[in-house]
Amino acid sequence: MSDSVTNTKPLRYAIFGSGALGGYYGIMLAHHGCDVHFVARSDFEHIRQHGFHLQTRDQHIHLNPVNVVSHVSQLPPIDVLLLATKTTENGRLKQWIAETPGEPAVVVLQNGLGIEQELEAEFGKGRILGGCCFLCSNKIGPGRIHHLDFGRITLGWASLDSQVHSQTPHVAEQIATDFQRAGIDLKVIPDMLEARWRKLMWNIPYNGLSVALNASTAEIMNNAAAAELVFTLMEEVRSGAGACGKLIEPEFTTQLMVQTKNMVPYDSSMRLDFRARRPMELEAIYAKPLAAAEQAGCPLPSVKMLYRQLQFLQAAYVTVD
Amino acid sequence: MSDSVTNTKPLRYAIFGSGALGGYYGIMLAHHGCDVHFVARSDFEHIRQHGFHLQTRDQHIHLNPVNVVSHVSQLPPIDVLLLATKTTENGRLKQWIAETPGEPAVVVLQNGLGIEQELEAEFGKGRILGGCCFLCSNKIGPGRIHHLDFGRITLGWASLDSQVHSQTPHVAEQIATDFQRAGIDLKVIPDMLEARWRKLMWNIPYNGLSVALNASTAEIMNNAAAAELVFTLMEEVRSGAGACGKLIEPEFTTQLMVQTKNMVPYDSSMRLDFRARRPMELEAIYAKPLAAAEQAGCPLPSVKMLYRQLQFLQAAYVTVD
Repeated sequence: MSDSVTNTKPLRYAIFGSGALGGYYGIMLAHHGCDVHFVARSDFEHIRQHGFHLQTRDQHIHLNPVNVVSHVSQLPPIDVLLLATKTTENGRLKQWIAETPGEPAVVVLQNGLGIEQELEAEFGKGRILGGCCFLCSNKIGPGRIHHLDFGRITLGWASLDSQVHSQTPHVAEQIATDFQRAGIDLKVIPDMLEARWRKLMWNIPYNGLSVALNASTAEIMNNAAAAELVFTLMEEVRSGAGACGKLIEPEFTTQLMVQTKNMVPYDSSMRLDFRARRPMELEAIYAKPLAAAEQAGCPLPSVKMLYRQLQFLQAAYVTVD
Repeated sequence: MSDSVTNTKPLRYAIFGSGALGGYYGIMLAHHGCDVHFVARSDFEHIRQHGFHLQTRDQHIHLNPVNVVSHVSQLPPIDVLLLATKTTENGRLKQWIAETPGEPAVVVLQNGLGIEQELEAEFGKGRILGGCCFLCSNKIGPGRIHHLDFGRITLGWASLDSQVHSQTPHVAEQIATDFQRAGIDLKVIPDMLEARWRKLMWNIPYNGLSVALNASTAEIMNNAAAAELVFTLMEEVRSGAGACGKLIEPEFTTQLMVQTKNMVPYDSSMRLDFRARRPMELEAIYAKPLAAAEQAGCPLPSVKMLYRQLQFLQAAYVTVD
């Protein structure tokens, strides 16, 4: 972490990934005066020339010019790195983080389980945070983001004792202030792993079923058989969380299902990936939670069945480059 | 049962359903000299004018003229009624059987569980038999059947004491003789219900997965994740059978999987139905076995999950007329 970061100095952000998630949060932060640098790959040239367009329900933001680079080594010293790429691209993640100037705090905004723990094992405690995003947002073209609904983030240190090892113990609160100023509901929470499991209670049923049943969240919730599947899967994930020491109240299942039934019809990111024949985030969203629950003595047979179906569909339809 | 039926007099057959299954067996019996009458609906006029065409791996049979009627009431007195319609059309089945002249013995060649028991409850013990068909055959046009592989039937009385109530206790053996003369491997077995469960061990995984994964048997068996799903489902059905008092040896699972891997790539009847947007046989193949196992204290969670998915897919894609 750069020495220049104090409570009074503003944070400099870098964002890996300029898609539906990284694009949305990055544009909102930059638009509200934060110092934000994007690392883009396929869209780099387009963003450099034309900037970003963000369409929300009530406003259109055209961010131009944009601080954008095509490789992390071209960044200035960074305080906070927001990780907004897909987990399917995590192969060179540690290298990218190591090459980012300034030894930044890293906020994992990715889906699934276990990424923060892997990064802590590599970079030590005190630098890694996680964020669970509840966001309905789509990338509709190069540099073009369409925000549909929500945006809330729960942010926390990777593990319960990370903060005490940090050179910047208050960075979570500083990030919260910046996001809140940008109009994003970001809440700092004490137990990130519990938040991850809560997020999985949504991702595991809806991401997988939206692919296996070729259906939107609304189509799933409007069919009794599919809604029963959601319930079965969600309760199984909740039992897995419990076995791993994260006790989640049963009402949370009902709450998630009602929320989803009431939200705008939405194609999960996994469904969009599958339709575009991109690899799906099966490892982070299915394999790791299954392994964690199994290790805690709690096999999740319905989740496993869905995972096997998705593996088949990925092998049959997705061209991995 | 007509008084004219004795061990020496030939049986007169009627066949409900002129599709892949009824067409194949009926044509083979008629071609080999049996007295066979077809009850056809949509294809009636076509079959009456042009007869049947059956293409097998090594021969082409053109059966013309064909004894065909459009309603059971037009049949002559019948000794044996072969029931080869889909279970999805069973709404008026009891009425059709009641209207068939001659009070025939009824052989249920349909898929799934519980049909024989329902018919025994209506028509009494001693008239109802069941047959499990292991047949790869497709209807490729009006009156046109393409036989791909297999054809074996296991035939038995509906329940263990049906035979003793029958006016024609030897009818199963007479049927066996006729089929064997027609080149079809038909074996009389003592326990039909066990045979039904054995057949379900194939139908439940392969029919459902071929729809849910949009895949042929070969595509399923050539993918490790999908083959594991087959194994899980098959073993669950086997445990359900066991709970219902039908103990099936574990080797049978392996045997079925190896057989399927080695057979010609095949689209299950359920997949063909789904692709043609016809109703699938979910009640007979999923709902009834699930209920039977559940009642015996053995819930089948993976089977239930597949059933729920199929219910969703049916509601989403099938136009029920």
